[in-house]
Amino acid sequence: MDLSIVLDPDSPVPLYRQLYDQLRAMILDGRIQPGFRLPPSRKIAADHHIARVTVTAAYEQLQAEGFVTSRVGAGTYVSELPELFPHQVDSASKYAASLSTWGRRVLEIGASDDRGIPTGRRTIDFGFGRSFPHIFPYDIWRRLLARYLSTDDTMLSHYGSVAGFYPLRQAVAGYLRRLRGVRCTADQVIIVSGMQQALDLLARLLLNSGDEVLVETPGYSGAFELFRTFGARLRALPVDEDGFPVEQIPASSQARLAFVTPSNQFPRGGTMPLSRRLSLLRWAREANALIFEDDYDGELRYTGHPISALQGLDRDERVVYLGTFSKVLFPALRLGYVVLPSSLSNPFHQAMNLVDRGAPTLTQAAVADFINEGHFERHLRRLRSEYGRRRRSLVEAIERYLGDDASYSPVEAGLHVMLYLPSAVDETVLVTEAANAGVGVYPGEPYHLDRPAQPSILLGFSGLNTGEIIEGVIRLAGVVHSLMHKSGQR
Amino acid sequence: MDLSIVLDPDSPVPLYRQLYDQLRAMILDGRIQPGFRLPPSRKIAADHHIARVTVTAAYEQLQAEGFVTSRVGAGTYVSELPELFPHQVDSASKYAASLSTWGRRVLEIGASDDRGIPTGRRTIDFGFGRSFPHIFPYDIWRRLLARYLSTDDTMLSHYGSVAGFYPLRQAVAGYLRRLRGVRCTADQVIIVSGMQQALDLLARLLLNSGDEVLVETPGYSGAFELFRTFGARLRALPVDEDGFPVEQIPASSQARLAFVTPSNQFPRGGTMPLSRRLSLLRWAREANALIFEDDYDGELRYTGHPISALQGLDRDERVVYLGTFSKVLFPALRLGYVVLPSSLSNPFHQAMNLVDRGAPTLTQAAVADFINEGHFERHLRRLRSEYGRRRRSLVEAIERYLGDDASYSPVEAGLHVMLYLPSAVDETVLVTEAANAGVGVYPGEPYHLDRPAQPSILLGFSGLNTGEIIEGVIRLAGVVHSLMHKSGQR
Repeated sequence: MDLSIVLDPDSPVPLYRQLYDQLRAMILDGRIQPGFRLPPSRKIAADHHIARVTVTAAYEQLQAEGFVTSRVGAGTYVSELPELFPHQVDSASKYAASLSTWGRRVLEIGASDDRGIPTGRRTIDFGFGRSFPHIFPYDIWRRLLARYLSTDDTMLSHYGSVAGFYPLRQAVAGYLRRLRGVRCTADQVIIVSGMQQALDLLARLLLNSGDEVLVETPGYSGAFELFRTFGARLRALPVDEDGFPVEQIPASSQARLAFVTPSNQFPRGGTMPLSRRLSLLRWAREANALIFEDDYDGELRYTGHPISALQGLDRDERVVYLGTFSKVLFPALRLGYVVLPSSLSNPFHQAMNLVDRGAPTLTQAAVADFINEGHFERHLRRLRSEYGRRRRSLVEAIERYLGDDASYSPVEAGLHVMLYLPSAVDETVLVTEAANAGVGVYPGEPYHLDRPAQPSILLGFSGLNTGEIIEGVIRLAGVVHSLMHKSGQR
Repeated sequence: MDLSIVLDPDSPVPLYRQLYDQLRAMILDGRIQPGFRLPPSRKIAADHHIARVTVTAAYEQLQAEGFVTSRVGAGTYVSELPELFPHQVDSASKYAASLSTWGRRVLEIGASDDRGIPTGRRTIDFGFGRSFPHIFPYDIWRRLLARYLSTDDTMLSHYGSVAGFYPLRQAVAGYLRRLRGVRCTADQVIIVSGMQQALDLLARLLLNSGDEVLVETPGYSGAFELFRTFGARLRALPVDEDGFPVEQIPASSQARLAFVTPSNQFPRGGTMPLSRRLSLLRWAREANALIFEDDYDGELRYTGHPISALQGLDRDERVVYLGTFSKVLFPALRLGYVVLPSSLSNPFHQAMNLVDRGAPTLTQAAVADFINEGHFERHLRRLRSEYGRRRRSLVEAIERYLGDDASYSPVEAGLHVMLYLPSAVDETVLVTEAANAGVGVYPGEPYHLDRPAQPSILLGFSGLNTGEIIEGVIRLAGVVHSLMHKSGQR
């Protein structure tokens, strides 16, 4: 019987492994049957001009895995495998996933994939949440990383603590106390692999199906989608220039959780004033509720100093503060943090320990030094200056080229502007036509849970230089005017 | 009225922020009331020998946040805040977390925290899952990382793909096909932040409360605890030298999921032979079930070549293959991978996108190069040689110093040995006494879901050198013999 073995000496797969793979396939698909005697290793070696030890290695591997049996002095035989799996592929027997309730909700919700990642086809991409690579001090970062890569450092050889690398927790706590008005100790700070992970764990710990959650509209759709996977009922209150309208929470609300962005409302912009913050805390006390404070870009404020966190006003431990390094360092770092009230500390730790064993120690150690040695605050100042310049260019270009045809939300902070357009302009058409004109803009509709009063688009400015920003707005204005002309508004 | 302001020029907190903090606190706790006029900035500046612009900055910040109102020509007044939150701390109003069903289960299960992390008090720690830091090629790793830190690399400035950095997915797929017998394309490989994250996502997608899951005992307690948070009923089958006893699955079983470690049963050791693997696949087809193949250390096999994965035998797409870099590179890297059958691809992607936005790109890129440039397979060979030497020392020391008083499980693979002791020895007492003798050993009981027939301990050898291993076993033998003497067995 000719076994039709073909060996390729140029393949990256070792010769013994090629031989093993082919014999194994023959056994599995029944081409050679139980009891069949494999050719002596000497013969295969001679036929294929390979070392006999190569054949022996393949036979030994087949034997170790139970495909063949070796009888001393009698050769190597294909094993009796009475329970041999029928290897014909049977489409009826192919696995079809039967999803859990959670899994089915995930599919129904159909989270938007990889939002904000430029496709590469667009010339000028107003994607938001991007950072401008040339601003980041790579030389310093590389130097800090290199410190923890020395051979006598044993830090890398253990699993880190699930709550995060302690010096980073200390550095974050110090920064938040010093510059964000957060009241916290290092023990309350947990390092996570991003805000989404923290939100997910908190929602799992707190939400049962049917629970009501108060959210902002427009708002952070990543949170909406997540809460819905737990079967939560979202009650969305339309924000105004002062953010979340606390006074509009209906007396009938059963919510014991609210998700808000007080420092810079996402995506509309605007800061929640003190009186509303205090009202929100009073609501939380009266409703026995918890507040998630999403401070995704509170550091990036261009007029005056950053606004202190809502968390710092709270005396009831009813605020969970969520922050991220994605916006102010770089997104691919995958590090965020959460400041927990004491009653959530143990549940959150236990849950982290079960579902994820923490973020990489190396980057955590480097970020801790980055903060402790003053690079972080220096970098924030530079970001505010650089992004502030871009923001001014964008606002000036909007004023000049779109003039009365568009209005925009407050822009004291953050990395994007939300632009409102006349109702004659169709949002989807605008986004498509802008793309055709080589400009990437993002529809506002997905962030709304109510029916938006006006069409809107989001323009992120953090990934572009001022020349690109101006050119992009000129092209966008051309598209807007042409659409208005078609609709007869001009 | 004296405001009792104290400013410290040596503090890392800026002077304006110190002033702001103190005035803010006075307003919040009612020491100064709405309508109170703050001293002119000129006066505070003079009293405290600071620049007037510092005082102005503090006042502007208080105004921006709504604490004070400025009237042109009339000074700065504490705002009317009719809704002012009562700031006395009231223990009755302090938030007490009301946990979800999942959250309550997490607390009941009480996951063991930071298992395997040495406390630093023990002299010789047989902790398992550790790696030996001096084996890792830090110079190569540092060089690979440095490549991706250059200023003109824009890779870091975008969020990565949630499924992982594509070149790493390709590299892992190639490695798994070439050396682990896994049948997969790069698209089936998803990079995760560790095996636990992958298990968590899969369990969430698949398990409803009350669902039955087949597991091994002793087995991986991290999976047991996780499955239980979903309300799963675990049916544990006691393993033998050939791993999971497929033939003992009762006909009455309703399980549609099995969690197994075919390459090297955890923690007992032993490899599932071909006939059992085929039986398990047949069971899965007949029960319309899915199999989680946890190949946590399949690369680290000391006799012969690594055993091919169960996944490679499957033709029904009923096996999810789970692997990790924690054991073979270093734990603090926090990278693992999962190979998905096609029916789980979309649900897993959608879920990843909702709950975590993927692992850091930097380390993924470096690991991809580490694999593609041959360092990974070289490193595996070196690990097998170095750890093989330690394993031999451990086994020889056990034979010599514990002799007939202990038996051990198969040790062809992995990073630890499970040692069985006479029933006269109490496991907990042994662990405590060993710690007193300066030896860290780990009880086998937490890995059992049945009542173990014999006491057992786990001895990890990957974090120790051969001298420490021998010395550790000598001390351990002393403790065992003394305990047996006390119990009258000697």
